[in-house]
Amino acid sequence: MASTGASGTTTVRYGTMKDNVLSLKVVLPNGELMTTARRARKTSAGYDLTRLIVGAEGTLGVITELTLKLHGIPEAMSAAVCRFPSVDEACRAAITAIQSGIPIARVELLDEMQVRVSNAYSKLNLPEQPMLFLEFHGSETGVAEQATRFGEIATEFGSGGFEWTRAPEDRTRLWQARHDMFWAITSYRAGAKVVVTDVCVPISRLAECVNAAKQEIERAGLIAPIVGHVGDGNFHASLMVMMDDLDEIARAKAFIERLAELAIALDGTCTGEHGIGEGKKHFLVPEFGEAAVGVMRTLKRSFDPDDIMNPGKVI
Amino acid sequence: MASTGASGTTTVRYGTMKDNVLSLKVVLPNGELMTTARRARKTSAGYDLTRLIVGAEGTLGVITELTLKLHGIPEAMSAAVCRFPSVDEACRAAITAIQSGIPIARVELLDEMQVRVSNAYSKLNLPEQPMLFLEFHGSETGVAEQATRFGEIATEFGSGGFEWTRAPEDRTRLWQARHDMFWAITSYRAGAKVVVTDVCVPISRLAECVNAAKQEIERAGLIAPIVGHVGDGNFHASLMVMMDDLDEIARAKAFIERLAELAIALDGTCTGEHGIGEGKKHFLVPEFGEAAVGVMRTLKRSFDPDDIMNPGKVI
Repeated sequence: MASTGASGTTTVRYGTMKDNVLSLKVVLPNGELMTTARRARKTSAGYDLTRLIVGAEGTLGVITELTLKLHGIPEAMSAAVCRFPSVDEACRAAITAIQSGIPIARVELLDEMQVRVSNAYSKLNLPEQPMLFLEFHGSETGVAEQATRFGEIATEFGSGGFEWTRAPEDRTRLWQARHDMFWAITSYRAGAKVVVTDVCVPISRLAECVNAAKQEIERAGLIAPIVGHVGDGNFHASLMVMMDDLDEIARAKAFIERLAELAIALDGTCTGEHGIGEGKKHFLVPEFGEAAVGVMRTLKRSFDPDDIMNPGKVI
Repeated sequence: MASTGASGTTTVRYGTMKDNVLSLKVVLPNGELMTTARRARKTSAGYDLTRLIVGAEGTLGVITELTLKLHGIPEAMSAAVCRFPSVDEACRAAITAIQSGIPIARVELLDEMQVRVSNAYSKLNLPEQPMLFLEFHGSETGVAEQATRFGEIATEFGSGGFEWTRAPEDRTRLWQARHDMFWAITSYRAGAKVVVTDVCVPISRLAECVNAAKQEIERAGLIAPIVGHVGDGNFHASLMVMMDDLDEIARAKAFIERLAELAIALDGTCTGEHGIGEGKKHFLVPEFGEAAVGVMRTLKRSFDPDDIMNPGKVI
């Protein structure tokens, strides 16, 4: 199976993980077992219970089985890495490529700090500049053409060092570094706890939001590399926090708040992938308004009147 | 904007229409105006109210505004048409192409009867055999390669006459015939009323389901061309019914029932696009089971306790 959004990677070609869930078996609060859909890829029968349960964070029922869409392993893949003078140019290059119809399979934005962290852990020698990691899927000629066309776009946006490859060992090394980012981050600052937060904004506002986040991080004296799923407008900031430093904890909390507020102000969401949990409950009303949150409350009560499913979370 | 599933066309590349709805404004039964989401392409904040409302057929609220994802017009398009010895081979060719990763933008299956109907209305000279209409989107070389590779697959499955073209006038003629199918069907049998029904099954069962439908149509002495969205496993049968012939009406009704039962037996759904309305309400329990339908009833009651939103429909 080709990767989907499972690891949070942007997948213009395959959609988000949600889009790849066909049906669920769910234990309801009353103990009944519900199947949300059959195996058809499309249905207009009844209410979409699959999508209601996905992302409900266990507050409406317990998922015990999933049926997923599978994607064939592509005939060929190519990978590319390129550096940009700024986050803004990296985002604009990715947006231009997506809008021009290049079916990017994966695209990840790394800020300078994340490049430094990954260099240290994954033994890479990438220049400490904003970077895009990309992957293209298709036929042999298709992936070559997609990479070459992306290279032309990247050059327009000031990318100095566009390299692409079809060699499996090079692709593996690149994406291994991506998959190891969590470990790279957790081992970078000795003694620190990593607190990851995410937001998602319209892709036209992504550069603005990432730049504002970087300024806030610097202003607050925090260490927090950024990885962005450029195709979705979603990005993560990984705060490395010393848990014995109460002032740093306070600054980290304030940053998380400000970032969520900013994302909402940019017509985005306080979380693209991580969910609401307990920490972001107070953003639901600013993000959705009273009417929608009222409906969510009603939904929760009607599913789970005794509040036994993951109580205290989301709503 | 490139076509999505709006007209019901299969879009492997762009997803179904539902996948392209980012957010909705909805008037709730209590008169409140709810916004279901912001403009971010991805969110994990709260319950997915957008997907709950899409497909609810107006029973939970009235949609007053939609925000949709747009797709760029591709640099190049190619179209292809090819005939097959049987529906089975046409389906298997389409499935093989999809599984091998060819990013088909549109693919439509026409049975012999639909070819005859479209020939008559759209002044085409297609042989009266099962046909696939296809469209590919991408770069100039990409669409050429996709069409050529599809042609190779089609030949493996016995297609005798694969033709593809990048000429806009040929593409327009082909897809104009597709868009005119409804008019072609309504004008084919003088005095008849057209009653269209649809089902959707796992694509691996599509040929089986279409063949069974064709046999039922013939056995019952009905006239009903079939158009299938092969990429989704979804197809439509357009029954041309003389409304003064009570026996024919009864046979048409019985066919619609049997087709829905068959689709459910094949792990599919009683409707892929048309919805439940009043006519298919009794299939919800066979399709979803009592637990899921119980949840749908609870949802309807919690949204609309006075049953003022499209009462009597869906649930």
